Amino acid sequence: PSSEASSQGKRGADEKVQESKDIVVTSEDGITKIMLNRPAKKNALTFEMYKEIILTLKNASTDNSAIAVFTGAGDYYCSGNDLTNFTSAAGGMEEAANQGAVVLREFVNSFIDFPKPLVAVVNGPAVGIAVTLLGLFDAVYASDKATFHTPFSHLGQSPEACSSYTFPKMMGSAKATEMLLFGKKLTAREAWAQGLVSEVFPDSTFEKEVWTRLRAYAKLPPNSMRISKELIRNNEKEKLHAVNAEECTTLKARWLSEECINAIMNFVSRKAKL
Amino acid sequence: PSSEASSQGKRGADEKVQESKDIVVTSEDGITKIMLNRPAKKNALTFEMYKEIILTLKNASTDNSAIAVFTGAGDYYCSGNDLTNFTSAAGGMEEAANQGAVVLREFVNSFIDFPKPLVAVVNGPAVGIAVTLLGLFDAVYASDKATFHTPFSHLGQSPEACSSYTFPKMMGSAKATEMLLFGKKLTAREAWAQGLVSEVFPDSTFEKEVWTRLRAYAKLPPNSMRISKELIRNNEKEKLHAVNAEECTTLKARWLSEECINAIMNFVSRKAKL
Amino acid sequence: PSSEASSQGKRGADEKVQESKDIVVTSEDGITKIMLNRPAKKNALTFEMYKEIILTLKNASTDNSAIAVFTGAGDYYCSGNDLTNFTSAAGGMEEAANQGAVVLREFVNSFIDFPKPLVAVVNGPAVGIAVTLLGLFDAVYASDKATFHTPFSHLGQSPEACSSYTFPKMMGSAKATEMLLFGKKLTAREAWAQGLVSEVFPDSTFEKEVWTRLRAYAKLPPNSMRISKELIRNNEKEKLHAVNAEECTTLKARWLSEECINAIMNFVSRKAKL
Repeated sequence: PSSEASSQGKRGADEKVQESKDIVVTSEDGITKIMLNRPAKKNALTFEMYKEIILTLKNASTDNSAIAVFTGAGDYYCSGNDLTNFTSAAGGMEEAANQGAVVLREFVNSFIDFPKPLVAVVNGPAVGIAVTLLGLFDAVYASDKATFHTPFSHLGQSPEACSSYTFPKMMGSAKATEMLLFGKKLTAREAWAQGLVSEVFPDSTFEKEVWTRLRAYAKLPPNSMRISKELIRNNEKEKLHAVNAEECTTLKARWLSEECINAIMNFVSRKAKL
Repeated sequence: PSSEASSQGKRGADEKVQESKDIVVTSEDGITKIMLNRPAKKNALTFEMYKEIILTLKNASTDNSAIAVFTGAGDYYCSGNDLTNFTSAAGGMEEAANQGAVVLREFVNSFIDFPKPLVAVVNGPAVGIAVTLLGLFDAVYASDKATFHTPFSHLGQSPEACSSYTFPKMMGSAKATEMLLFGKKLTAREAWAQGLVSEVFPDSTFEKEVWTRLRAYAKLPPNSMRISKELIRNNEKEKLHAVNAEECTTLKARWLSEECINAIMNFVSRKAKL
Repeated sequence: PSSEASSQGKRGADEKVQESKDIVVTSEDGITKIMLNRPAKKNALTFEMYKEIILTLKNASTDNSAIAVFTGAGDYYCSGNDLTNFTSAAGGMEEAANQGAVVLREFVNSFIDFPKPLVAVVNGPAVGIAVTLLGLFDAVYASDKATFHTPFSHLGQSPEACSSYTFPKMMGSAKATEMLLFGKKLTAREAWAQGLVSEVFPDSTFEKEVWTRLRAYAKLPPNSMRISKELIRNNEKEKLHAVNAEECTTLKARWLSEECINAIMNFVSRKAKL
């Protein structure tokens, strides 16, 4: 349903508006579609991808689309932060932590500030920041093959993307803690019951049903949708920015902690042995 | 179960306390019952009805009832704002928008400030402001024939009655946006799952079960209920007033926008052709 | 699965750390277990028990456990505040109300400020403050024999333990009011649907499944869990303290009201006649 195959080079509606390997952005039917396209790595996010998404959202804020949609190529939606962002950093962990906190804060801010309806089409498993970011989306449609996993404690880390605020607000602390502190993995149905997901679809009809619906939504009066979202978001925009700043500061310290470094080293070396 | 047939004229408990055509107010068993009574128009709210409800809630604040209950006459609970409030306004749309925003703000404030338990008995479909207001009620009982529909974007409008705050707080943004921006219509069961409705009853036993329960609740110590509600409401009363003001300002501008005027004209002319 | 039978007298891990009749505190596998142990009175809380729990939480804040867990001995989790705290007070109701409000505020503050993951293992019925406090826990596991009942209005009282804030936030006002104002008793499954309970287990396997899970959680990096909880709690710690203060002031006045005194006298004399 997207237009990856459409003509390129010119800027405009119904055309591919940005060239990239790991992020594919297309525009059609009033929808800016942002596809994470690193399927061999389960769409894990590199520093470059964070930066590219910041630019993509900036462009989508003012293009002629009515809504913006994130999805993933392949079986995964997104496996979260690529841990080699840390282990392969030229300046070592401290430099990586400093740089990472700056990029992360700007990245999350671009979601807080995005002015149009923002929809996630969760085609498969979501991990870490790919899950926590959903609290900043306006609607989340999930295949019944999707799962939602935030193993922050297991990796010696702490929640980000304002999830320390949005998750307890959305689902209550009894359920937010199971995810954010204890790393409980949720099925799509469980994520729906807890308010993280708007609706779950059978995987076999997922793409068809969701995109049909999204094309209909994209035809609604765009100013009304933008202004209604602004009303909703303004109730907590200041709070969200403060939470994001605090989470990034906390996470930077976590990244340099023994708990975190040991956990990441174990994770990466286990992967390397496979 | 109400006392519409009881003697009239005298002010007091267990009697009809206010005379009107479109709003019928009765008092019995410690309950002030406010019935929207314009069934030929699906209980759509005229400017006059807004003003009458403001007065009714003011009276009910200090009468000898323990709780107040809204319900609708006929098959509908309430089809929302009567769009002829705009198209039939003597001074044209601009005058109607100015007047409408003032009345709406005072109307919603009277729900924010109402000091006793406020219950909605949703006997059938609810639309627009009849839905959004439910976020300011203390309990909502619904027939399984009830539906909940807020097609604001379809009409070029934006959310009111503090729903830009109460709905995301109650159900998370993934579900609030589907209602408030995308105009998704909910069944009673869906509204229950999302916290908007306290309990759903089969239509056949709805009235009997709900009023039995309400009569029992109305016998509880009234000061305790009033003071407990005050504790709860005070946590966000200031915020609710600020949200209401902002929503009314936004909606006034919407009413004068091309998107909205076109949508309302289309809606009214479609109706006229039927 | 706990170590009540373990050696006593020395302070340290895997040992009984505090001596008491009505509160039994043990430490094992990184878990501080706090058991309400007054089964003949359904674990109702006396003034002494409130004070003991304050001290216990203070100790558990800095001991070498990763998490702290509350549970009840016998069939009940906890039947709430022991009403003889009022009727048996030496200085009469006024003295009891003053003292009660001071102790309650400090008691609730010790839950607001507790820095580690705090889990409730709800083995049976919970009443009153044993229910409202759950809004300050990080996870709540319930047997399917558990029930959740807050008959504040029936006793002429008002909500405490920040539930006037946490319950509407968690479940929306349509459901919070049914509990806090109308005294509706919830099953474990209903409490789960409304976000008060993290997960419900069949009573036959409850203890085994829950403690297996808790022992696994207690092995996660403790600093990550503590810091993640701090991030979450800091978003509303100031608000929670303010709500607690307001609730205690309100409740002190309630305790001296005619509605409340009559309700408690009726309750105690009914009990005495059995």
